[in-house]
Amino acid sequence: MLLTAGARGVFPIAPTPFFDDGRIDTASIDRLTDFYLGCGATGVTVLGEAPKLSHDESVAIATQMIRRASALPVVVGVSAPGFAAMRALTHDVMARGAAGVMIAPPNTLRTDDQIASYYAQASQAIGTDVPFVIQDYPLTFSVQMTPAVIRRIVAESPACVMLKHEDWPGLEKISALRGYERDGSMRHIAILCGNGGLFLDYEMERGADGANTGYCFPDMLCDVVRLSAAGERAAAHDLFDAHLPLLRYEQQPGVGLAVRKYVMKRRGLLASDAQRKPGGALSATAQEEVDYLLQRLARHDARARLD
Amino acid sequence: MLLTAGARGVFPIAPTPFFDDGRIDTASIDRLTDFYLGCGATGVTVLGEAPKLSHDESVAIATQMIRRASALPVVVGVSAPGFAAMRALTHDVMARGAAGVMIAPPNTLRTDDQIASYYAQASQAIGTDVPFVIQDYPLTFSVQMTPAVIRRIVAESPACVMLKHEDWPGLEKISALRGYERDGSMRHIAILCGNGGLFLDYEMERGADGANTGYCFPDMLCDVVRLSAAGERAAAHDLFDAHLPLLRYEQQPGVGLAVRKYVMKRRGLLASDAQRKPGGALSATAQEEVDYLLQRLARHDARARLD
Amino acid sequence: MLLTAGARGVFPIAPTPFFDDGRIDTASIDRLTDFYLGCGATGVTVLGEAPKLSHDESVAIATQMIRRASALPVVVGVSAPGFAAMRALTHDVMARGAAGVMIAPPNTLRTDDQIASYYAQASQAIGTDVPFVIQDYPLTFSVQMTPAVIRRIVAESPACVMLKHEDWPGLEKISALRGYERDGSMRHIAILCGNGGLFLDYEMERGADGANTGYCFPDMLCDVVRLSAAGERAAAHDLFDAHLPLLRYEQQPGVGLAVRKYVMKRRGLLASDAQRKPGGALSATAQEEVDYLLQRLARHDARARLD
Amino acid sequence: MLLTAGARGVFPIAPTPFFDDGRIDTASIDRLTDFYLGCGATGVTVLGEAPKLSHDESVAIATQMIRRASALPVVVGVSAPGFAAMRALTHDVMARGAAGVMIAPPNTLRTDDQIASYYAQASQAIGTDVPFVIQDYPLTFSVQMTPAVIRRIVAESPACVMLKHEDWPGLEKISALRGYERDGSMRHIAILCGNGGLFLDYEMERGADGANTGYCFPDMLCDVVRLSAAGERAAAHDLFDAHLPLLRYEQQPGVGLAVRKYVMKRRGLLASDAQRKPGGALSATAQEEVDYLLQRLARHDARARLD
Repeated sequence: MLLTAGARGVFPIAPTPFFDDGRIDTASIDRLTDFYLGCGATGVTVLGEAPKLSHDESVAIATQMIRRASALPVVVGVSAPGFAAMRALTHDVMARGAAGVMIAPPNTLRTDDQIASYYAQASQAIGTDVPFVIQDYPLTFSVQMTPAVIRRIVAESPACVMLKHEDWPGLEKISALRGYERDGSMRHIAILCGNGGLFLDYEMERGADGANTGYCFPDMLCDVVRLSAAGERAAAHDLFDAHLPLLRYEQQPGVGLAVRKYVMKRRGLLASDAQRKPGGALSATAQEEVDYLLQRLARHDARARLD
Repeated sequence: MLLTAGARGVFPIAPTPFFDDGRIDTASIDRLTDFYLGCGATGVTVLGEAPKLSHDESVAIATQMIRRASALPVVVGVSAPGFAAMRALTHDVMARGAAGVMIAPPNTLRTDDQIASYYAQASQAIGTDVPFVIQDYPLTFSVQMTPAVIRRIVAESPACVMLKHEDWPGLEKISALRGYERDGSMRHIAILCGNGGLFLDYEMERGADGANTGYCFPDMLCDVVRLSAAGERAAAHDLFDAHLPLLRYEQQPGVGLAVRKYVMKRRGLLASDAQRKPGGALSATAQEEVDYLLQRLARHDARARLD
Repeated sequence: MLLTAGARGVFPIAPTPFFDDGRIDTASIDRLTDFYLGCGATGVTVLGEAPKLSHDESVAIATQMIRRASALPVVVGVSAPGFAAMRALTHDVMARGAAGVMIAPPNTLRTDDQIASYYAQASQAIGTDVPFVIQDYPLTFSVQMTPAVIRRIVAESPACVMLKHEDWPGLEKISALRGYERDGSMRHIAILCGNGGLFLDYEMERGADGANTGYCFPDMLCDVVRLSAAGERAAAHDLFDAHLPLLRYEQQPGVGLAVRKYVMKRRGLLASDAQRKPGGALSATAQEEVDYLLQRLARHDARARLD
Repeated sequence: MLLTAGARGVFPIAPTPFFDDGRIDTASIDRLTDFYLGCGATGVTVLGEAPKLSHDESVAIATQMIRRASALPVVVGVSAPGFAAMRALTHDVMARGAAGVMIAPPNTLRTDDQIASYYAQASQAIGTDVPFVIQDYPLTFSVQMTPAVIRRIVAESPACVMLKHEDWPGLEKISALRGYERDGSMRHIAILCGNGGLFLDYEMERGADGANTGYCFPDMLCDVVRLSAAGERAAAHDLFDAHLPLLRYEQQPGVGLAVRKYVMKRRGLLASDAQRKPGGALSATAQEEVDYLLQRLARHDARARLD
């Protein structure tokens, strides 16, 4: 099953579960996958903490997810400083049934030409038959892609089928891209939104097809995307707003993954909230803050009642 | 009245009001100042859109605010690429009664030594009798100051009395700085928080003294700071959370000022939401989104009922 | 006399002479200007250490140079974080007879659209009748302009008449721009090269019109440009290569200006090599190194015999 | 044979030889290694174009060099975005006889603490028994290490034995580090200089132990280091200066490797000057320029007579 431009819904970014000693926790991978299947996810994106995984570990984790989530397309993050590693990982996971790969731009790219060339070369390097997702995340990668550059990548690389949209601000960008589709200057691609989900409520209204982020309540993301797609605007915002205080807290760079894993552990999805080194841990104060956020959230969403 | 390390409460970042044709709207400056006074602000920080103002305009706006808000300390942003312009503006506004100045680091600074030296030199350049505020905003300035560097600036520059804290993430930084005060390794300085207020709820609990940001409901900031200081945790969070969807929307880089001025115009605080060129305008869709955010907010906060 | 696209030859970047106590040394300004006139310069660009000058000082220095060098066009650097200061300085120096202004891009620009828009807006802000020079110096400004972006600026801003070319590497960029002129897709602009002159020998052969840099032997730059324009390839390279060890030494970021002023003081062009704070001084070891470089240079160029 | 702080002389940065079709040219690896041995190199650093090599290719190339250059220590560049890949490559090459590894900082590091922590964690990750070289190259990596930070790394990581010094400007940094050794605040480490060799003449005089760069005449580097160490100042500079025009040309970012391989091919050291994609090729004009540089160099150095 290959990823197509018709993708929609929620592709959670799956964290990589570790035991406290740094070993990979395969039981939690299964549990997490089952949870995604159960809550209405339409795909999954791996690999969390990718740079801390060896090539063989990356392939093993992706393979396990692909098998367990057989109904769902699994996208694998293959960003790398060079095409050799990118090609090797792509080849191995596609051979095991991955639906496509996600590629972030190296943070040395500046000009429009450099960005467009990079994606054309990357697609050539991994094989033009491999569907790929552009990760557009300037806050982290320092690479700024205008809508026109994305259109150019889409034109030059037939294998580009999805945008992981996490520019900030980004609402007008979604409108611009959908405008290109309407005026016939760009073929349709899926737009799934990241950025921790911080603007998912309005991104959906601007024409996004769903979410592609790792917020600790992927089930909420699925509900918001469903409600929004169904035109139930007030209900979508009510649910989203109830989660916003926690979601915003989880969206902090560097700290976010620790928050996410901590809540997922409290939800019983992960056996441990450990990260491989180097990785940030939550201070006792931060844990208390997250607990309080969950307690307040529980007034609105029963899924947050964790005691 | 000079700014001291005992400052607390809310210092709104005042936008500069323009007419649609780009002229400065002095009537709105008065109206805005009166509003700040009325809603409980304990100071004001100018100058919004500073790089678009000539030196003489900057001095005139600051002077008007200083006179009108005679009970409140007025802090003037004097960041500049060189010390000549910084010194000139500082001199002129201090002579007219400003309480102090705010200085952001030039985005070429990298090492701890460079940052500490810069502030020591800046303080020498403007006069060591002029109280100054460090603006710590890595997201915009790309300069990362550790708590230890801030401690060093405080030690080396007696005129440093306040931190405009807008690191992101920044909660642990507040805790670290307050820890330095407790262990006696740093004298007390005021910490007022920026970042659009996105973490004000927990920043207050970590030891911040208040807010120093331009959110379009400064009255809400005053209430949250008051409730939090009074230990009314749930009430503080309830009010903050009601505003969070709008506050988050206003926090978008580049777009935020347009949102802020649009709401302030709708609130009757500004005659126009115009920015001087170059400046972003709100699209019709974005205006509708802000209207909807206000409408939803009005269910919780009567101040948002604007029709 | 306004700057035109027909400019060629050498426009030295004039350092601003200070006394040891930081006051401006007007006598050295005259001496320097006379030297430029005498050695064959075809223009001059000011203002060295611009951020350390107040507006009034900047205008005074430019005015003095304009009067003294009446036969030569004087270009004034007016780069600023906002258009208010840029407009004010431009207005004042053009009123006093400046030939045009030079504008560097703010280092926040990333995309092609941002860069092109910036120059269009800047030209509108200062007046479309003011000839301007693009300063293309990615190493310092972190802004990368492709040849196509420069062509777009030239097309969108009729007032753009010159490129201060200091991309690195940049030889192919000159060839590309001259290619645009040949294929009729871009009108002619002057290309004068900076970067300390490090590639002036080959830049001339690629189609540059001259140099626009502050190397401490502007007379050598004039000779190399003249020899190269006259087709005396070997002689041009022989002279250039003799200076390259010193020129390379002077090209070090941060240190370069100290080297330049030290040599110009030794040459009798400046009364002092002082910089205004903050500014780097030469260590005793560095002075000895420069002395040795001069001594070795003197074997090939009598102008370096300074004892 | 493990790398020690007593290393000195020239460790050429070996390019990776490819055939025109991108396959690795093992015969040229042998030829290159023999040349290094013959011209007086005291070590070798691999891997050129590292990101374009798969893990297995990297190990194979390093292993071939280690065997062929059995008398010389071989240092392997293992920089990677995460410790998993860094650890894996380090383990495999050390098991095959590498002398140590070189580690560049990821370009997200900013504060002194972040830089020092990174090297401590990296050393832990690869094994504290593996000697490592700090690559200090701010121009490319955007990470600025003060002398004090380097001293801290040396103190915190006993396995740190060498600095590949390529800060720019960097002469005062060498003096500062050697000053730390003299005042007893830092143990001795080897300092070998990169930056294409652009300041090797004066770096040696400041206390560097040699060169660690890939200039196309490594034999010249060996001679200059030897002459300089022997106190033959004028002879060292005469030889260096003769090469400076070409060396400077080769030092252009992005283009440099193409120049280097082109000359090495002309010298008979490489069968092809091909780079793996993505990689820059020399234009016909650039080739002509390099040919002319070689022709001029041949007047001073017979090794440049290539016809």
